[in-house]
Amino acid sequence: MSTTMQKIGIEKVKHSKIDQVDFDNLSFGSVFTDHMLVCDYKDGAWETPKITPYQPITLDPSSKIFHYGQSIFEGMKAYKDTENKVWLFRPLDNFKRLNISAKRMAIPEIPEEYFMEGLKALVEVDKNWIPQKDGSSLYIRPFVFASGKGFHASPANEYKFLICLAPSGSYFSGKVKVLIEETYSRSANGGVGYAKAGGNYAGQFYPTQLAAEKGYSQVIWTDDNNHEYIEEAGAMNIFVRINDTLITGPTSDRILDGITRKSILQIAEDEGIATEVRKITVTEVVEAAKNGSLKEMFGAGTAAVISPIATFGFRDVDYDLPELKDSFATRLKKRITDIQFNRAEDPFGWRLEV
Amino acid sequence: MSTTMQKIGIEKVKHSKIDQVDFDNLSFGSVFTDHMLVCDYKDGAWETPKITPYQPITLDPSSKIFHYGQSIFEGMKAYKDTENKVWLFRPLDNFKRLNISAKRMAIPEIPEEYFMEGLKALVEVDKNWIPQKDGSSLYIRPFVFASGKGFHASPANEYKFLICLAPSGSYFSGKVKVLIEETYSRSANGGVGYAKAGGNYAGQFYPTQLAAEKGYSQVIWTDDNNHEYIEEAGAMNIFVRINDTLITGPTSDRILDGITRKSILQIAEDEGIATEVRKITVTEVVEAAKNGSLKEMFGAGTAAVISPIATFGFRDVDYDLPELKDSFATRLKKRITDIQFNRAEDPFGWRLEV
Ligand SMILES: Cc1ncc(COP(=O)(O)O)c(C=O)c1O
Ligand SMILES: Cc1ncc(COP(=O)(O)O)c(C=O)c1O
Repeated sequence: MSTTMQKIGIEKVKHSKIDQVDFDNLSFGSVFTDHMLVCDYKDGAWETPKITPYQPITLDPSSKIFHYGQSIFEGMKAYKDTENKVWLFRPLDNFKRLNISAKRMAIPEIPEEYFMEGLKALVEVDKNWIPQKDGSSLYIRPFVFASGKGFHASPANEYKFLICLAPSGSYFSGKVKVLIEETYSRSANGGVGYAKAGGNYAGQFYPTQLAAEKGYSQVIWTDDNNHEYIEEAGAMNIFVRINDTLITGPTSDRILDGITRKSILQIAEDEGIATEVRKITVTEVVEAAKNGSLKEMFGAGTAAVISPIATFGFRDVDYDLPELKDSFATRLKKRITDIQFNRAEDPFGWRLEV
Repeated sequence: MSTTMQKIGIEKVKHSKIDQVDFDNLSFGSVFTDHMLVCDYKDGAWETPKITPYQPITLDPSSKIFHYGQSIFEGMKAYKDTENKVWLFRPLDNFKRLNISAKRMAIPEIPEEYFMEGLKALVEVDKNWIPQKDGSSLYIRPFVFASGKGFHASPANEYKFLICLAPSGSYFSGKVKVLIEETYSRSANGGVGYAKAGGNYAGQFYPTQLAAEKGYSQVIWTDDNNHEYIEEAGAMNIFVRINDTLITGPTSDRILDGITRKSILQIAEDEGIATEVRKITVTEVVEAAKNGSLKEMFGAGTAAVISPIATFGFRDVDYDLPELKDSFATRLKKRITDIQFNRAEDPFGWRLEV
């Protein structure tokens, strides 16, 4: 840590609200810890972050976040091992991606130590909030938005960077049934799909609602040109197993460079599983489902880790995937969560102790 | 007006801040009137709107607007004629478009009378704020955003609909030099480009900054497939005059159905100008510039009304447009603003008195 940053000020709550929380019945991202990190951008620079009690934000009605969607975020987790040590998983990758998103959305980049030191300090302050029940974890949400004022459609002159923490249960419950989408799209060539920009997510809500009305819980996004290639599964990267090869699409300006995705790829290689990173056509997935060579499909992302797909729908036909005894999904999920929770060796150097 | 809506409550400011405003030197959208309209969506319904003093909004850090860009807006103006009568221009079209945007962004639709009666009541309360200097007007910004809480990437359960008013000077100053964009895109097929969704605008900031570094003030957006067709000019619809025909692209799911655009088309037809609504290729515009048949290009939108393009850049070559004595842009701008300011007949029934 360089010495240029001033010490992060910490204002603690007088009374913790932790006793009010039922840690055995957590939903995803709806309970928040006692504190948050706040960092303001003003007069051309990010100010030193501070930790304050979790509290409302007050903004002018003309703040650009309300009008022009100038916002980005990250999603990560903190894990507690059996010795109560606290771990982060590849946090520097989240930091780097936040700044990739920032650049695309014309938001000033965050200094590395503000993010990393702020994150560690906040998790340390609220470490009692990290759930230890299996499947639960402390979800970490760094986000940046335009607080500057004015109706001119141009970048704001003031921003806020916050980190909030939410002890969370698992993201999905039950088997996931997905629909291959051929009408709506989530991102354009040359667009902002590779950024974790707020607007990308709101744009998915309506098509996902339409899919839900037909009984699907997620949409498989395809390219917007001809809906020829499968690209993402909701807000997760997608993996397909054909025979014994694990395939995922290449990242692009339409696809988020997921940290779970790249970790899964590396673990699979380490486990001797054949992997391919290449475009996947809808046609080949449907053909493989028909001829039985499609063994597995799953989404990969921080929130759900690995989310196996039980059924996919395409043009009014549902294709069920087989139930395998030793699926790649189960094996890879065990391996990655064992690393995250410090239950196994970390040959890749991904864990960071807080 | 149906009788189902309760009366709009009005809480007026104790002291107006109008005396602090220099009406001769207004920029665009940076000064706000004394009041605003606020309407909350809770428990599955929009509550009766109310008019309150213009004041900050307080939100939980987990409000979905900060994370998932679930927001939409409109842009319109109020005009004062020489007899101090106040006029709106096609406000019902803004209302309808707001709800088209709402649907795409999974935001509950606003009841018509909440919008229309709220709008009129607000403009009435702050009508002294309507500038009368030529080129100035009262810019009206209706907007809706997700105030509901939680990190689950799904539609919020609470929303806020506001209308704010900003006495404004003209949007652009000076000649506009634009760049035909071939790398970045503003919208996808099957995406949200036809909606006035917040995120669409933030996505334009970075490419526009890059263009500005090369000396261009706006980007001409092309389709994201092959950058073959010109689609919009910044946040305006685009018109091209080749010889004596005025051409604009058809609206689509990538292009906003602009109220200025469709009014201009109707006025042009009324004036006996030949119009075409069809796809415009970049190639034909460049060819027309080279052979002299390209007479005019302009952007059309509420903020700038008509914004003539002096020069466009394409692949490192700048093409200057001729300076015409009787340009369509000048003629059409005069005609539309004469209607808006009640200086001329309104054969189309577009004006609505407040
Ligand atoms: C669109 C999208 N794709 C994929 C992912 C997975 O990324 P990560 O594994 O870094 O969480 C995310 C975030 O969770 C996402 O928002
Ligand atoms: C992307 C875009 N295109 C075109 C327009 C023009 O629409 P209108 O004439 O209704 O203002 C706007 C809004 O001003 C816009 O945001």
